[in-house]
Amino acid sequence: MIKNKKIVLVGCGAVGTSFIYSAVNQGIAQDYVLIDVFKDAAIGNEMDIADAQAVLPVSFNSIKAGDYADCKDADIIVITAGRPQKPGETRLEMVADNAKIMKQIATQIKKSGFSGITIIASNPVDVLTYVYKTVTGYDSSKVISSGTTLDSARLRRLLAAKLGVMPNTVEAYLLGEHGDSSVAAWSKATVMGKTVQEYIKEGVISEKDLSEIKDEATHLAYKIIEKKRATYYGVGVCLAAIAKAILKNEQKMLLVGAHLNGEYENENIYTSVPCIIGRNGIEKIIKWNLTSKEQTLFNKSCEQLKEVFNTAKKAIA
Amino acid sequence: MIKNKKIVLVGCGAVGTSFIYSAVNQGIAQDYVLIDVFKDAAIGNEMDIADAQAVLPVSFNSIKAGDYADCKDADIIVITAGRPQKPGETRLEMVADNAKIMKQIATQIKKSGFSGITIIASNPVDVLTYVYKTVTGYDSSKVISSGTTLDSARLRRLLAAKLGVMPNTVEAYLLGEHGDSSVAAWSKATVMGKTVQEYIKEGVISEKDLSEIKDEATHLAYKIIEKKRATYYGVGVCLAAIAKAILKNEQKMLLVGAHLNGEYENENIYTSVPCIIGRNGIEKIIKWNLTSKEQTLFNKSCEQLKEVFNTAKKAIA
Amino acid sequence: MIKNKKIVLVGCGAVGTSFIYSAVNQGIAQDYVLIDVFKDAAIGNEMDIADAQAVLPVSFNSIKAGDYADCKDADIIVITAGRPQKPGETRLEMVADNAKIMKQIATQIKKSGFSGITIIASNPVDVLTYVYKTVTGYDSSKVISSGTTLDSARLRRLLAAKLGVMPNTVEAYLLGEHGDSSVAAWSKATVMGKTVQEYIKEGVISEKDLSEIKDEATHLAYKIIEKKRATYYGVGVCLAAIAKAILKNEQKMLLVGAHLNGEYENENIYTSVPCIIGRNGIEKIIKWNLTSKEQTLFNKSCEQLKEVFNTAKKAIA
Amino acid sequence: MIKNKKIVLVGCGAVGTSFIYSAVNQGIAQDYVLIDVFKDAAIGNEMDIADAQAVLPVSFNSIKAGDYADCKDADIIVITAGRPQKPGETRLEMVADNAKIMKQIATQIKKSGFSGITIIASNPVDVLTYVYKTVTGYDSSKVISSGTTLDSARLRRLLAAKLGVMPNTVEAYLLGEHGDSSVAAWSKATVMGKTVQEYIKEGVISEKDLSEIKDEATHLAYKIIEKKRATYYGVGVCLAAIAKAILKNEQKMLLVGAHLNGEYENENIYTSVPCIIGRNGIEKIIKWNLTSKEQTLFNKSCEQLKEVFNTAKKAIA
Repeated sequence: MIKNKKIVLVGCGAVGTSFIYSAVNQGIAQDYVLIDVFKDAAIGNEMDIADAQAVLPVSFNSIKAGDYADCKDADIIVITAGRPQKPGETRLEMVADNAKIMKQIATQIKKSGFSGITIIASNPVDVLTYVYKTVTGYDSSKVISSGTTLDSARLRRLLAAKLGVMPNTVEAYLLGEHGDSSVAAWSKATVMGKTVQEYIKEGVISEKDLSEIKDEATHLAYKIIEKKRATYYGVGVCLAAIAKAILKNEQKMLLVGAHLNGEYENENIYTSVPCIIGRNGIEKIIKWNLTSKEQTLFNKSCEQLKEVFNTAKKAIA
Repeated sequence: MIKNKKIVLVGCGAVGTSFIYSAVNQGIAQDYVLIDVFKDAAIGNEMDIADAQAVLPVSFNSIKAGDYADCKDADIIVITAGRPQKPGETRLEMVADNAKIMKQIATQIKKSGFSGITIIASNPVDVLTYVYKTVTGYDSSKVISSGTTLDSARLRRLLAAKLGVMPNTVEAYLLGEHGDSSVAAWSKATVMGKTVQEYIKEGVISEKDLSEIKDEATHLAYKIIEKKRATYYGVGVCLAAIAKAILKNEQKMLLVGAHLNGEYENENIYTSVPCIIGRNGIEKIIKWNLTSKEQTLFNKSCEQLKEVFNTAKKAIA
Repeated sequence: MIKNKKIVLVGCGAVGTSFIYSAVNQGIAQDYVLIDVFKDAAIGNEMDIADAQAVLPVSFNSIKAGDYADCKDADIIVITAGRPQKPGETRLEMVADNAKIMKQIATQIKKSGFSGITIIASNPVDVLTYVYKTVTGYDSSKVISSGTTLDSARLRRLLAAKLGVMPNTVEAYLLGEHGDSSVAAWSKATVMGKTVQEYIKEGVISEKDLSEIKDEATHLAYKIIEKKRATYYGVGVCLAAIAKAILKNEQKMLLVGAHLNGEYENENIYTSVPCIIGRNGIEKIIKWNLTSKEQTLFNKSCEQLKEVFNTAKKAIA
Repeated sequence: MIKNKKIVLVGCGAVGTSFIYSAVNQGIAQDYVLIDVFKDAAIGNEMDIADAQAVLPVSFNSIKAGDYADCKDADIIVITAGRPQKPGETRLEMVADNAKIMKQIATQIKKSGFSGITIIASNPVDVLTYVYKTVTGYDSSKVISSGTTLDSARLRRLLAAKLGVMPNTVEAYLLGEHGDSSVAAWSKATVMGKTVQEYIKEGVISEKDLSEIKDEATHLAYKIIEKKRATYYGVGVCLAAIAKAILKNEQKMLLVGAHLNGEYENENIYTSVPCIIGRNGIEKIIKWNLTSKEQTLFNKSCEQLKEVFNTAKKAIA
């Protein structure tokens, strides 16, 4: 029998509900379930989004505030739950706390009998994805960190704007941490079929331009937060893109946080590398030959994450 | 030359940006401009939504924080600006204030040389649409109140849920005020090609059920606000549906607030009736033969709005 | 695991391949299999349609010329195979022959272990659907005749054109035979929420107009054949609409040929009535209260089909 | 006022109507006009495609058999008219004849006052596009040959199949003649962000494989014609992709036949090179640095076309 496509959201804040809103507007699934520790947030958003059902060009079958039992037959779970850093506490205290929250969520999802694919956007995203994978024991191909999907989308649009073209002709990606230590793989970047190196040679763009674009891409979140206190629309569409690539088996290349097992000279860590995303989740980790400079930066990014990983590991031990 | 489809949003709160987010996810225009008295709100949302550009299945060409000069060659302006009732003030004080805000907005849009179609969602919506039309002097076919689009979407989905069908097989609409005094035109409602009266005769549904569904549809906003403090996703999709019907010339029936000039026994008022929406805005006001009971309720709804209209008229005099 | 949506086409003539072309352009499935007794027709169309894979806005995973073994895990099989009436032979001779062809196809599909939903468009469509259902013994909810989907689409667009509106505001349907004896259920027809009877009363349209529109809808095939020798684009989109309603579980009302078991005063016959189409195939036969004149015409239409049904039954006995 | 998007088709054979069918299924325009010297072909297809209007997920406003006067306010004209080589005549005789046909078409379009963008698919496509441009005197950015759009789509899908990936991760293009002498720009080809050269080094694919893929891409038309006598579905989607890139201002890279004026070392010729396609037609000819081997082959391809160009030029002199 033909199964409805079913998505469960855990965490009904602005990021989570922007994802669901993007998903219903794009028509990527039939059934949606909203879970939040504050039941009112789930119920309120259920009603608000349900109101779109009769008006959308591609409608859905159902949306409801639910609980972890609803995960059992879901195709995809998206987790955005977590809490921000509080004034006066250290970043690692926040990490420890969020790791414990993630452990609880993971335990309940595991208990539900869920056998689908999980996408995690709670921050620090690669660390919490690691926690989730460890607690559930799920196959790493089915546990995806949203990683640098958004960072890469920013890099593409900023480079496109600089060159006066549309992002659809730009291939440019950030690897490593979803954060400041991420690495722009400029050696793999192309615009309209030409490498970025060729544009540099032609004097169209400079190394300095690239460096500024990379910085802007990684710092954009701060600028948006300064203006509107939070970012959620961009990441919402990124989560929808990952979910759609899975549900429609697009076999599409996306920069997501994957569990490395020797790839890119690192192991036992979640961090972002180019992956093929399809109905089995991470279908393949693409192996790029980075330049030695890029590889060094990538290793540094992984190194830097270790303390955070260790804090999280201790918190859930 | 082929012109890009261009939408200007005035008012970058949750309602306005949810509309833009719905629009970019559905891919209904190429250029977007965001205007807000708080420039930061426009800039922050510009950046947050721009981040979706490289990831959307159907991308757009541009989004920017702008000003009224950008209205000149826009196809559609959507206005969601306004302020809620403050504690301690009367509703009419709030109306007077919002009417003045709308007058300022209308004046600046008029000055820009704009010649497109305006959709207004600021509350009280029909009253502020009247103010806008009065100040600009634009043809009434080009000035649309979002009216009971959302209320009708709610009625359809609630009736659908009650009968265990999908909203796509339900035709059911609320006329009159976007608010408690709206009128359910049950005499025109059908489900899977059968009138609601037939379902009543067959005992499938009762008059009491219909009455409860109408009440729930008109009170849903309060329930959502109780749970999440505001409603914006549902109305965002409704505004996108109106804008899409215009930009793609769908010639589609929607319940929007239109300027009555004798239709439905009323005149010189904005209130919701069934309209055909296409590239000229309100292409036609559809004339339904309401039952006398429905017509009486509709007249009462108009009557009740008069004091609010008069308050607004005085405020902008 | 998330399953690809898979469609098998049996019969790679212009109707069948137009359906597949419509389906890939709309992006409704991931895997397509083409079967034809003339293997070259399947192979040639596989290559021609595969060429669209890299260019479509929504791509598919695979298309291949296959055989009945490929039906096993398909979600939908669409059958358009059959042959037209030859010069010099009677219509009933043609029916007998096509019934035998359908019996062979049905036998091979049954043998494959297929458990999905079958849509049949081979003519005479209701009769051959009956043959298919009889031979396979499949549940009647999973065996659908394309019936008057196309005839109803014609009625809607012609009535819309007459009234100067778009078909999206018109509800009007033909029941009974996919052919001359079909019945226009005018008592159920609405345009922009008003019954056709109201338009007659207002003098906007006349009974004679309706009668002419019905005639044109049922005779349009002949006119198209006169001009271009065959019709296939219209029916291709209709088959795609039925398939999409199933694969996306739209729970949508369509006029398809269903197995009547007492509904509409008839039984043990396939003929067109309004149905809800979803992931289970025919989810529900909608029971309209026809006028006595409409019911009489419907019964006559069924009566007329009986000889054809009997010819088919004998042919496969 | 918002203008409907309008497409005129000249030549209602299988290629032309497959394009229109693809366009209506993808919903890329609102108004369609069909022109053919055999008026019946235009009328028959008008009716057959109009039947889809009430059933399509995204409908259109109108389709009609028309004449050249309808070109005046069209956004896009697609020309597929022409005749195949007859038995016993030389290829150049056929070219001369089709050049005369194209001259007549061009003259009538010019007379209509048309100011939009023309896409030509009649064969030999670059030569006939040159004729059209010469006769009309239109700006070369607004006269586009479908060129190697289809050939490149074939190259991408065949390379994708060879490497077991989906075409969306493959960038690979054929330049030059739409025909045997086209040049695969392997130096610019990437798969999942890696150059084809890297795959060769890793032993994943060989030079011989690439050569075979290029041959298969350029000979596929013959194979399809052998099986089903004609090819039309693939090219139909390619024409829709070009038209959509224009109408939605996608600013997308496509391999189309463009008028070279020194680019790629050639001038006064139409042949395929990478271009950005947007609302102004060919927005930009992208300048790739081909390898000297590729450039030599490209020059040869141009050289080879010269005789055909000269034959055409004489025919319309």
